[in-house]
Amino acid sequence: MSKPRIVILGAGYAGLMTAAKLQKSVGLNEADIKIVNRNGYHYETTWLHEASAGTLPDTRALYDITGVLDKNKIQFIQGTVEKIVAKENRVLLEGGEMSYDYLVVALGSEPETFGIKGMKENAFFIDSIHSARKIREHIEKQFATYSLEEEKDEKRLTIVVGGAGFTGIEFVGELANRIPRLCEEFHIPREKVKIICLEAAPTILPGFDSDLIQYAINRLEEKGVTFMTGTAVKEVTPDSVIAGKDENTLFEIPAGTVVWAAGVRGNSVVEKSGFETLRGRVKVDSDLRAPGFDNVFVIGDSALIINEETNRPYPPTAQIAMQQGKVCAHNLLALIRGEKGKLKAFKPDIKGTVCSLGEHDAIGIVFGKKLKGTAASIMKKVIDNRALFMIGGLSLMLRKGKFKVV
Amino acid sequence: MSKPRIVILGAGYAGLMTAAKLQKSVGLNEADIKIVNRNGYHYETTWLHEASAGTLPDTRALYDITGVLDKNKIQFIQGTVEKIVAKENRVLLEGGEMSYDYLVVALGSEPETFGIKGMKENAFFIDSIHSARKIREHIEKQFATYSLEEEKDEKRLTIVVGGAGFTGIEFVGELANRIPRLCEEFHIPREKVKIICLEAAPTILPGFDSDLIQYAINRLEEKGVTFMTGTAVKEVTPDSVIAGKDENTLFEIPAGTVVWAAGVRGNSVVEKSGFETLRGRVKVDSDLRAPGFDNVFVIGDSALIINEETNRPYPPTAQIAMQQGKVCAHNLLALIRGEKGKLKAFKPDIKGTVCSLGEHDAIGIVFGKKLKGTAASIMKKVIDNRALFMIGGLSLMLRKGKFKVV
Repeated sequence: MSKPRIVILGAGYAGLMTAAKLQKSVGLNEADIKIVNRNGYHYETTWLHEASAGTLPDTRALYDITGVLDKNKIQFIQGTVEKIVAKENRVLLEGGEMSYDYLVVALGSEPETFGIKGMKENAFFIDSIHSARKIREHIEKQFATYSLEEEKDEKRLTIVVGGAGFTGIEFVGELANRIPRLCEEFHIPREKVKIICLEAAPTILPGFDSDLIQYAINRLEEKGVTFMTGTAVKEVTPDSVIAGKDENTLFEIPAGTVVWAAGVRGNSVVEKSGFETLRGRVKVDSDLRAPGFDNVFVIGDSALIINEETNRPYPPTAQIAMQQGKVCAHNLLALIRGEKGKLKAFKPDIKGTVCSLGEHDAIGIVFGKKLKGTAASIMKKVIDNRALFMIGGLSLMLRKGKFKVV
Repeated sequence: MSKPRIVILGAGYAGLMTAAKLQKSVGLNEADIKIVNRNGYHYETTWLHEASAGTLPDTRALYDITGVLDKNKIQFIQGTVEKIVAKENRVLLEGGEMSYDYLVVALGSEPETFGIKGMKENAFFIDSIHSARKIREHIEKQFATYSLEEEKDEKRLTIVVGGAGFTGIEFVGELANRIPRLCEEFHIPREKVKIICLEAAPTILPGFDSDLIQYAINRLEEKGVTFMTGTAVKEVTPDSVIAGKDENTLFEIPAGTVVWAAGVRGNSVVEKSGFETLRGRVKVDSDLRAPGFDNVFVIGDSALIINEETNRPYPPTAQIAMQQGKVCAHNLLALIRGEKGKLKAFKPDIKGTVCSLGEHDAIGIVFGKKLKGTAASIMKKVIDNRALFMIGGLSLMLRKGKFKVV
């Protein structure tokens, strides 16, 4: 008898958690399991804002995928997915293809630019280790150039961040800590540097607790961040951002660095493959399978699940992605064992949400409790370490964890 | 109808965990629950070696009991238990008494001196916040006096620790870190200070992994600790310890400080109350009740449970005490709800054991993995913080936790 072939696409939080849970329970000869990822490493998407600002070396935010896999049970394949041909149970890779009996689509997200003019060409995105490194190097180069050039180009010292959601706020928090060190290094007066955060919604962190929002604003403004809420980005040029409340109030901010952190959409491969999507995300069934495909799971940022209490989609978070990975592994085992009655419905269990404001400072709600400052910052690191532990056990947590917390 | 009266004696790991679990599940009017403790605070017994050595302020190792209780469900009574009259469902306190329908005996342990001559009178014990403070102050006074006196009494600088089990080793580990600081403060050359650890067994940490033991010996000897294994203490005098392999090889070590850390026995109240005990511990039934008493649970260091794999008792640890507290709370609820079929058997789940060797250093086995050095030290703190979290939730963990780990 041939073994069922399981293919997992993507080794982010969702895909890697599926693999981690699967290899704990699957028998040695029960299935032929492969996981495909573009890079040989997994990176901590939730730490990219630190690597981008330069407050954490980018190598700290990544680890080898094979290091957390049980090679007797799961094979790693480095490759880039081009298209899924779900009707034929095939996946097309750059320079090859694979067949499967069961597929897990965990390809993550892409930046959502909402068709804003010049964005793709002129802005940076916090969406991979490469892009994080590019942002860090670009900012350093702007400061270095400014310090050396005879005729100073002041806009080199302006950094505009589009979006004041979690990623945008966490990134400006780190920047606010990094800038004084860069100023010292390059002998630039701090007051010459501008960090401007633009947000189309009337407030930063829309939907978050208002006390905590006020705390965040106070702390970040003290550190020299300027917030402009109710202000939408209309265009990004090679050396400026054009923004305004509406078409009649547009203004231009000259800026040497523009980082767009205003949202993500599902991976375009999913859309291209003919699944029905909403902003690139597949509205999955309760057991996480794609409608119409009994053998295809879609999880992580490519999956769309509606929170029935608010009638809005759950946000694309690492917490939810990992919880989906667990359920996905359980359901895969149920399917290959012919126990359809054991298929589980996915139900998110939001333990908490913490938004970092830079080293030693954060805001959050954990187990229903409001936290700010050091306490929240400690919890942020506890959460980061827990994610490492859940995927790679003790050794990964001890190797890559964040322990300098106070 | 009158509510069943539950009385918990002791607010250590076992008693407080019982209370914490109970108050989560019990209805507001389902039971009348009281917890009795000698002090108004709980102290972290597993941190006492640090308070004793002076490497942690003693106030860090304690917290108010009422702070973790839900006052609508559990009442705290400060009092000292003198005797339990189990046949009459009564507890005698200093200056009062209480009746109960269900009793939880979680009175902890006492130092075991094995009848060694002079021990009770002349040695210190690491068994409460008071005793920890006394040890710290006594050592400091010895150093201070030595630095001031004209005729130097060299034995003031000798500290003998009896016992190289967990407590003994953790204490000498902290001492080894503290001594250099004391020497600096009082202008005493480090080489004048002796830390001597005596152990009757042929090795330190009997039963532990031999690689890890060797690591501990090397690290502690480097820091100036002298180990004498296979050497039993025969007598303690006001200014010395008499020890030897046997009666024919006795020698005397002049010592200004003697600390006895060679074992504990169950609380003498339990013995005095007529329960059948073995070294003060009650061999409980699988559901943690005392044989012959359907309404009395004995948990924590006063309970004796045999590990069937090794045919030896499980050691008295915080980990096991807390696990017993959970099961005890579950079983209490089953009893007051008349659901005897739901009584659970207690089964220890040893996740790991870590022995600290002082700040930033430790040895241990966690989830079956051997750890030493920083990694083990991090895990020690993770374990300490988890205990706080389990009893007092997030706020207690954030308030009293150990976060400076590297």
